[in-house]
Amino acid sequence: MGLFGKKPLKIGLIGLGKIAVDQHIPSIRGNKHLELVAGCSPHTRPEGVKAYPDMDAMMTAHPEIEAIAICTPPQIRHKIAKEVIAIGRHVFLEKPPAATLGEAEAIKALAAAKGVSLLASWHSRFAPAVEATRKWISEREIKSITIHWKENVRQWHPGQAWIFEAGGIGVFDPGINSLSILTRILADAVMVKKADLHIPVNCDAPIQVEMDMMTEVGFPIRAEYDFLQTGVQTWSIFVESTAYEKLTLSMGGTELEIDGRTLIKQKEAEYAGLYAHFHDLIRAGKSDADFSPLRIVADAMLLGKRIAAPEYIE
Amino acid sequence: MGLFGKKPLKIGLIGLGKIAVDQHIPSIRGNKHLELVAGCSPHTRPEGVKAYPDMDAMMTAHPEIEAIAICTPPQIRHKIAKEVIAIGRHVFLEKPPAATLGEAEAIKALAAAKGVSLLASWHSRFAPAVEATRKWISEREIKSITIHWKENVRQWHPGQAWIFEAGGIGVFDPGINSLSILTRILADAVMVKKADLHIPVNCDAPIQVEMDMMTEVGFPIRAEYDFLQTGVQTWSIFVESTAYEKLTLSMGGTELEIDGRTLIKQKEAEYAGLYAHFHDLIRAGKSDADFSPLRIVADAMLLGKRIAAPEYIE
Repeated sequence: MGLFGKKPLKIGLIGLGKIAVDQHIPSIRGNKHLELVAGCSPHTRPEGVKAYPDMDAMMTAHPEIEAIAICTPPQIRHKIAKEVIAIGRHVFLEKPPAATLGEAEAIKALAAAKGVSLLASWHSRFAPAVEATRKWISEREIKSITIHWKENVRQWHPGQAWIFEAGGIGVFDPGINSLSILTRILADAVMVKKADLHIPVNCDAPIQVEMDMMTEVGFPIRAEYDFLQTGVQTWSIFVESTAYEKLTLSMGGTELEIDGRTLIKQKEAEYAGLYAHFHDLIRAGKSDADFSPLRIVADAMLLGKRIAAPEYIE
Repeated sequence: MGLFGKKPLKIGLIGLGKIAVDQHIPSIRGNKHLELVAGCSPHTRPEGVKAYPDMDAMMTAHPEIEAIAICTPPQIRHKIAKEVIAIGRHVFLEKPPAATLGEAEAIKALAAAKGVSLLASWHSRFAPAVEATRKWISEREIKSITIHWKENVRQWHPGQAWIFEAGGIGVFDPGINSLSILTRILADAVMVKKADLHIPVNCDAPIQVEMDMMTEVGFPIRAEYDFLQTGVQTWSIFVESTAYEKLTLSMGGTELEIDGRTLIKQKEAEYAGLYAHFHDLIRAGKSDADFSPLRIVADAMLLGKRIAAPEYIE
């Protein structure tokens, strides 16, 4: 298809923490169209990756790098993205794309002006049962959607203190995955109507959230986020049609059940899908930068009621 | 100019509270291209205005109304705007345009689809010294901008309890006026970097805010908002160039001082300017819906540090 004979796209990583090691490095290595050249981080040195203390050192040693994935915490993503775009490299942004909508929009404008590809990634959109869910919904009149996204922060985010700092968005960090699926499976815009934000007295971001949303068509969407779930996590979206049909998308989008029958149950390979998408965008000279999941979080923080929750200590 | 001989544009008001009485009614009456036909409100009956309990009653009695200004609290603006657009009338939204960015974007999409004009109004942009400030900045390298927007909530917002409720945005309600000026006088995008939000223990919205912003070019912007100012209010923006020139835009944009010399000192006529703009938009078949001031507030609420402030009792 025109890619035959093309050399693999050369990728560098900025940020070599948990998500880089768990997902980015194996996904790049598993894609024959991509080549992981090097990474940089002030601290971390994952085995088998050529690592440099910062981007300048990495790019001086490897000017052949064509595209860069930014896997740092969101608070510094805008500054780094700006530097990456300034040297004309394509950008893969981990989720959420930036600390604010203003920063995200600024990155988008800079990438467009420089003519590089930008992927604001939402890995959950690449879960195996998301597309079937989108199709099912598009063929029905929907009565309601309920989201339960509950996990143990101590298990899933060990040492990630930034998650509860200002700009870290707390339980919205996993919750935004459900919103990235929601905004993909619905054709209609989603609006926040009410949010209860439970914020530990020693933190700046919520640890539990109950949120009521509505679509323009008018059916209700309820989301319950909980970072203090123990035992097995729950990453489920329940959809009911006005004809009382029931769809359950569970395990983060990997399992699909309709009216009690399991139709899809697959291992996730989200980052493989993301990186294939990133490669396609670059080869096509396009970008994919939809910030609607972050807008929903910002809107929840804008109009939400703050409720003091007990101190959180990891 | 082609308008000669045209009949005045027929306007209806939804919401007949303080801002309608203080600004909308006299401004519409002062514009010969406009005609105030009627208004509606469940409670208020301002003298000299034909008033109905709700929009349906108003439109049944006066189907000739062509455009509607929505002067309700922001929490219900989206719902009303949707109804107004559905019957094909042009929309003037008081500021802020809606309770959330999602609602604001939805209104914009609906208006575009229906082919009606939408004005998301920011009255302070029509203050007499704003344009001269914009021009001065455009001709210089700027070193810093400082905003002091301080007023007594008890004096300026009597009885407006909604302002401290979830979605009411608190001291950002006046503060967003400074942001509407800021986003007009700068060509560059503005990003929130840090915000301290002082929220009374019995309220859901801040009463004092200190916020650090930055432009893409990289100079700092500091904003200090205070709802507990007593005595004279302060609505000032201080601009300093890298050549140490100093501009002060004060009294909400009505006074301009450069290097100690007063260049402009005029009475405000912002709503007159807004209504002239609304009329021009409708005659030209255009809209003006820039939500960047609300996006800055949402971003501040997204990444701001919440600090408990003493109970607020009006």
